[in-house]
Amino acid sequence: MAPDPRFLEAARAYRDELVAAGLLIPTGVPGVMGRGGEFEDTLDRVDALVTRFGASDGATVMRFPPILNKLTFEKSEYLKSFPQLAGTVHSFNGDDAAHRALLHGVEAGTDWARDLPSTDVVLTPAACYPVYPAVAGVLPANGRIVDVLSFCFRHEPSDDPARLQAFRQREHVRIASPEQVASWRNTWFERADQFTAALQLDARVEVANDPFFGRGGKLLVVNQRDQQLKFEVVAPIASSEWPTAIISLNYHQDHFGHLFGITTDDGATAHTSCIGFGLERITLALYRKHGFARERWPDGTRKVLGL
Amino acid sequence: MAPDPRFLEAARAYRDELVAAGLLIPTGVPGVMGRGGEFEDTLDRVDALVTRFGASDGATVMRFPPILNKLTFEKSEYLKSFPQLAGTVHSFNGDDAAHRALLHGVEAGTDWARDLPSTDVVLTPAACYPVYPAVAGVLPANGRIVDVLSFCFRHEPSDDPARLQAFRQREHVRIASPEQVASWRNTWFERADQFTAALQLDARVEVANDPFFGRGGKLLVVNQRDQQLKFEVVAPIASSEWPTAIISLNYHQDHFGHLFGITTDDGATAHTSCIGFGLERITLALYRKHGFARERWPDGTRKVLGL
Repeated sequence: MAPDPRFLEAARAYRDELVAAGLLIPTGVPGVMGRGGEFEDTLDRVDALVTRFGASDGATVMRFPPILNKLTFEKSEYLKSFPQLAGTVHSFNGDDAAHRALLHGVEAGTDWARDLPSTDVVLTPAACYPVYPAVAGVLPANGRIVDVLSFCFRHEPSDDPARLQAFRQREHVRIASPEQVASWRNTWFERADQFTAALQLDARVEVANDPFFGRGGKLLVVNQRDQQLKFEVVAPIASSEWPTAIISLNYHQDHFGHLFGITTDDGATAHTSCIGFGLERITLALYRKHGFARERWPDGTRKVLGL
Repeated sequence: MAPDPRFLEAARAYRDELVAAGLLIPTGVPGVMGRGGEFEDTLDRVDALVTRFGASDGATVMRFPPILNKLTFEKSEYLKSFPQLAGTVHSFNGDDAAHRALLHGVEAGTDWARDLPSTDVVLTPAACYPVYPAVAGVLPANGRIVDVLSFCFRHEPSDDPARLQAFRQREHVRIASPEQVASWRNTWFERADQFTAALQLDARVEVANDPFFGRGGKLLVVNQRDQQLKFEVVAPIASSEWPTAIISLNYHQDHFGHLFGITTDDGATAHTSCIGFGLERITLALYRKHGFARERWPDGTRKVLGL
């Protein structure tokens, strides 16, 4: 669904304010922004706060690069639902003559990348995707909890500073029986509430849906909302009227367990769920709510961030 | 130059040890590895140590995502020298019918990504590339020093755990007059020495060259080495006989100043130089030198890392 023109106008204006304050650095491509030193420092503190909220779980920490095995990506069925957001990686493998032709293309201003063959990797679409093949097989009795963070890519060029093409997701992923997953989800619903309260953000929880592609996607949206498989914590960034998702709680049922061959210790297909913290978005929500002068943020907010 | 087969054998064996110890996590693609929690924690501490060594410079901190404006990339002339290492990003922009064809391609095992159009971004080849357009124009009298870090991509699938396709470079970039750049380089030559000594690594400095492409590349190699434009600090990772570059000091003369229109305050084209710390490689060199039991690393090494 295309955003309201009034939202986009507000988003553009707020992006320009963020750039003028040195918090974001434009690169010439919509949705591809550098981060200033203070913005990055605040983001690191948000990340550390997520760590504190999940610390008692003893999650296994894994960190993956921004590129993903193309076979894992194919297996995940991401292309069925979100082909428009994916990014494949292509690379030159020619000889000296092909190199000369490539450089001629660049000089002539043609789409020189058009004919480059694809490589074995794609850009990581969500932080949890590399986790599923890494835990394939039979789970221990309590299932698994994995703590993951990576840069994610979504091809959705936008002037909204909260809709970046490359952004960091910090996730906790639960891989276990349906009952274990349900109990974990309840814990994180409470923690998400406490998390936004600690930061003194005007946040609320909503039933949500993913941006499924095409005509068939409409049915998937209805199904996802009816079954309440996705919740989002939203807070104002560019606009109070149209707040932005800053945390997302997703229940995949046995989708990934089935695709990647993950089973519980009694042989059933594992269920999975994840909670994703949009680190840039939470950081932006903080600047929106408390202003650009970080030294004047409320004492409570500064304290939980270690400022 | 292809590596010695004995080096590759040693590299494969060492990669398997790192995986068995939980420090690296295989993903099925050579050179695309996840990082275990302890590895990542050590890497963060190495990064913090770089911060301490550069702290007195008052560098401007900028952080960029792993994707780069394709126009910046074209302007940088990276494709002239290293077409074989670059990665372009492509994305689907078709309708429902094209989507069905795409999914058929995936099911049939064809190269479904082959015909996807390229986007406005490429993978970031080196952490300093987005800095040059960000500082274009006239510099202040003292020039600039920028502190940058990003995931970089090089398409060079390898079994060597130190030759990753996606890895983090922490860089300091000097943009100034030739004299200011020369003085800054001398400072970092000394600091690099102190840095590896603090970590108690068996490191040494060497004149080096970039892997320029093709027949024309051979001349560029000779020129770069004759003029001593590139130095590397090398230390053993997979092999003591063939150590690996862990820090790289590059002098670009007026190459980037010219391409991106950066001038000193007296109107001359700015010179640039950067020092790049390979964070994964330094971390790997630490495990190689001091062993997989971090709690038994030498007291001095543990102390500078805050362990």
